[in-house]
Amino acid sequence: MSSSESAADETYVIGVDFGTLSGRAVVVRVSDGEELGSATFEYPHAVMDTVLASTGERLDPEWALQVPADYVGVLTTAVPEAVAMAGIDPAFVIGIGTDFTASTPMPVLADGTPLNEVAGFEGRPHAYVKLWKHHAAQGQADRINAVAAERGEPWLPRYGGLISSEWEFAKGLQVLEEDPEVYARMDHWVEAADWIVWQLTGRYVRNACTAGYKGIWQDGAYPSRECLAALNPDFADFAEEKVAHEIGQLGDAAGTLTAQASAWTGLPEGIAVAVGNVDAHVTAPAAKAVEPGQMLAIMGTSTCHVMNSDALAEVAGMCGVVDGGIVSGLYGYEAGQSGVGDIFAWYVTNQVPADYHRAARERGLSIHEYLTELAQDQPVGGHGLLALDWHSGNRSVLVDHELSGLVLGMTLATRPEDIYRALLEATAFGTRTIVDAFNASGIAVREFIAAGGLIRNPFVMQTYSNVLRMPISVIASQQGPALGSAIHAAVAAGAYADVRSAGESMGRVDRNVYTPDDAAADAYDELFAEYTRLHDYFGRGGNDVMKRLKARRRAAWAVGVPA
Amino acid sequence: MSSSESAADETYVIGVDFGTLSGRAVVVRVSDGEELGSATFEYPHAVMDTVLASTGERLDPEWALQVPADYVGVLTTAVPEAVAMAGIDPAFVIGIGTDFTASTPMPVLADGTPLNEVAGFEGRPHAYVKLWKHHAAQGQADRINAVAAERGEPWLPRYGGLISSEWEFAKGLQVLEEDPEVYARMDHWVEAADWIVWQLTGRYVRNACTAGYKGIWQDGAYPSRECLAALNPDFADFAEEKVAHEIGQLGDAAGTLTAQASAWTGLPEGIAVAVGNVDAHVTAPAAKAVEPGQMLAIMGTSTCHVMNSDALAEVAGMCGVVDGGIVSGLYGYEAGQSGVGDIFAWYVTNQVPADYHRAARERGLSIHEYLTELAQDQPVGGHGLLALDWHSGNRSVLVDHELSGLVLGMTLATRPEDIYRALLEATAFGTRTIVDAFNASGIAVREFIAAGGLIRNPFVMQTYSNVLRMPISVIASQQGPALGSAIHAAVAAGAYADVRSAGESMGRVDRNVYTPDDAAADAYDELFAEYTRLHDYFGRGGNDVMKRLKARRRAAWAVGVPA
Repeated sequence: MSSSESAADETYVIGVDFGTLSGRAVVVRVSDGEELGSATFEYPHAVMDTVLASTGERLDPEWALQVPADYVGVLTTAVPEAVAMAGIDPAFVIGIGTDFTASTPMPVLADGTPLNEVAGFEGRPHAYVKLWKHHAAQGQADRINAVAAERGEPWLPRYGGLISSEWEFAKGLQVLEEDPEVYARMDHWVEAADWIVWQLTGRYVRNACTAGYKGIWQDGAYPSRECLAALNPDFADFAEEKVAHEIGQLGDAAGTLTAQASAWTGLPEGIAVAVGNVDAHVTAPAAKAVEPGQMLAIMGTSTCHVMNSDALAEVAGMCGVVDGGIVSGLYGYEAGQSGVGDIFAWYVTNQVPADYHRAARERGLSIHEYLTELAQDQPVGGHGLLALDWHSGNRSVLVDHELSGLVLGMTLATRPEDIYRALLEATAFGTRTIVDAFNASGIAVREFIAAGGLIRNPFVMQTYSNVLRMPISVIASQQGPALGSAIHAAVAAGAYADVRSAGESMGRVDRNVYTPDDAAADAYDELFAEYTRLHDYFGRGGNDVMKRLKARRRAAWAVGVPA
Repeated sequence: MSSSESAADETYVIGVDFGTLSGRAVVVRVSDGEELGSATFEYPHAVMDTVLASTGERLDPEWALQVPADYVGVLTTAVPEAVAMAGIDPAFVIGIGTDFTASTPMPVLADGTPLNEVAGFEGRPHAYVKLWKHHAAQGQADRINAVAAERGEPWLPRYGGLISSEWEFAKGLQVLEEDPEVYARMDHWVEAADWIVWQLTGRYVRNACTAGYKGIWQDGAYPSRECLAALNPDFADFAEEKVAHEIGQLGDAAGTLTAQASAWTGLPEGIAVAVGNVDAHVTAPAAKAVEPGQMLAIMGTSTCHVMNSDALAEVAGMCGVVDGGIVSGLYGYEAGQSGVGDIFAWYVTNQVPADYHRAARERGLSIHEYLTELAQDQPVGGHGLLALDWHSGNRSVLVDHELSGLVLGMTLATRPEDIYRALLEATAFGTRTIVDAFNASGIAVREFIAAGGLIRNPFVMQTYSNVLRMPISVIASQQGPALGSAIHAAVAAGAYADVRSAGESMGRVDRNVYTPDDAAADAYDELFAEYTRLHDYFGRGGNDVMKRLKARRRAAWAVGVPA
């Protein structure tokens, strides 16, 4: 059924997914989830991780900043393009939903103006958005964890016992301690997920997902003044003054589209705008992965694992468990790997020679496809390598961004495709470590469903199936988060009673696309045992050399020890 | 003084250095060591380490073979070219000396014919020369060490307690066990160092250097029949039948140039031909490094450390101590690192992207020079990385070619030059481990003298000086081994009484070219402690994962476990 035939009695929703490098808008039919058009807008400033664009100031390697105005470009560009591509009449659009990377907080004034747009603050790194993969607040995270453990804070077990440097409180404390003027000037410390909804509705509503997973909002409360003061006396008011605000439940409307946002997007003023959400969590209904025991892995630059359960448990190294954090009525669990596709991208950019790129071009393949082709027919263990997938730190189960990558086993006969494969395998081992932790905590993983950009690589998927010894189901949408946001928009607009029923009609998944090969799985069992031994040696205190090298690196650049 | 002025009353010698990829001939004036001309010949077959050229048969990654006829090409091509370049009358050449990589043994018939030239054997890998870096006899080496330790063989401590898989006995046992027909057919198991002298003189003389260091010839004897039979009953006769032969002392003449060799080289028939020698050891007099306490490091694809002492001691992990193994009258010690420049070459070929090669070309720099330029101004520890320099195994002090390379500390901000520098530093740490072992054994290293291709990189030299906390003297010849061979030729021809006095006149060194920077040395002390911890963990049984991965790699390719 083409969109023109159905135009008369159909309604539509818009889902907008704000990713790490770009934002994507998708037009979705409310009745069945059919995706009719989409468009992407690349952030002009991308990720600032070497220099601050406004001044050229050098940023330390752990930094990762963004520019809020880049996000608005998605609304003004990708949304109308997607509508035009779908060939629908915008008058039949009944709602818009959004999702964002997280935790990606930013300092703003009371009216929502980003601090980097305030005169005098353009040149200050701390006035910008701290992207999820900004890892320069590890020192603050360590202190939060030490203080919370010491005080026996009841919320700490909800986060696997460790708060990440990626989240709101660690990053907020870093702002206070490194640029107190920025801290003093900001009225709110806002997730970009909520800031973009604020731009659409004119109202600031904190979504329950980021508030719970990234903002330490548990059982209706934030960390106490006493706990925060123990970190830094000037931080005592942080939760009350900079963070606390009205909470919106997922699937609810945060408000309606303003005249200005209508002008930006070309959508009707007054349509429903869904409460903000996180790219991973919002994908669960799009992949029909909202029932207990269904683990959804959104595999892209990083991987996020989300799963619902009717039980509350403490899973080692999980990112968090939040009541209603994915869908209302269930406990939502989140775990993650901070670097996956990012590691492969780093590798092909920095460690693959010219003749490989040339051969890939001549074959009409991407460099990833070409390396995969060279690597995929090796027997398991044929490269003799083992890697640790910690180039961007370790989120689950170690929650430690002072860890770093490792490759072991190189000989003079090792080829670029060998190391590429070892890195792929390392991320599969990382996923298995997470699945094992859930199973060991009584939150059994009964189905593994994959979404995200890496599902396009069948070898990666088959390797994960072999390493996990589980079938893998795959989302049947190229744009899962945007579809999930559209599903939330349909609920916010009242077209469905709740997110679970909307997902049943609008979500898409292919079951058991990949199944494990027993011989390969046996071989991977042994390599996984080797991985685990290195994982525990370098990650659990056997040898803290990675942390010492990172500390030394920072000190070396600060002091300038001669070469 | 130009060569033409001196031609009337001067005599000359030829030194020929047979390296891993090519042979180099140098014409040297006997009176003062002046190098008047040189020429190089690249072996047509280079190193066969992926396939056997004659059949295309795939070789396992640990294999490294050569073709004997390639060596003769050096005599017929490079020698006359060097003489022509020098502009001397060949009638005034009084001797020729040679040196070779070692242990580089080959199977030959009684008349010296290489087995790969015998009908029916051309297609058999074991009929070819096993280059020094052929590491496929580790299993045999392990058994030799186990049996020798069990039996308390008196020669074992002379080799740091471990016989290398690179040496004559391990490689010979591999031939017996993997291709008994080749083993049965060969009359001699000959070092290429002696085979080339055999081609020049028509006489087979085993040089004292390889016989001692690589052939387990100690105190006038080889390992006993009983010991060899314990390894394999068919191996009992190996020393007596395949190895034992007349020994020639270094600096002696093995014979005189035959008519055929005169025709090949254009040199006078009947001139003195020096006993064969090893590239590293022969360099000692060329660098004026023959006195006790002077450690000479020949730094190229691999590094060999040689040092004389008047004391006999057991140094952990040394390759060997041989009475008169470098110069007569002193105990010659050898240690080594199996991969150095080889690792850097592997890295730039396999792990450096196109834009770096392009930028280097545009700047008119080699890729090594360019990466060095990018890396050298970092503070020590600024890259946050640590590597183990075991891509080609570990010769000293662990004597274990089942070990492999490691790089640790990578983040998404790690650049190719960072890892390049970490690899350079790892080789410096490897050298320090060796120097420390000598000092700990009472064989004090009082001066560190460098030779070999890596002396052209001042950053490498300065890094070694900082890591060792020692000044570094540098040989003042671009072709140290060939100069050393020429010095031996002059002694063999009777122009000097012995090698020490010839070296005093003909050798060349610049003292203390590099001196350590205290601040950098302090910082490297701490990184070296981290290196040592990883070195011992992976190299001394803390975690034998490298060995298990190598075993698994071999098994995987043999069995073909599905990908």
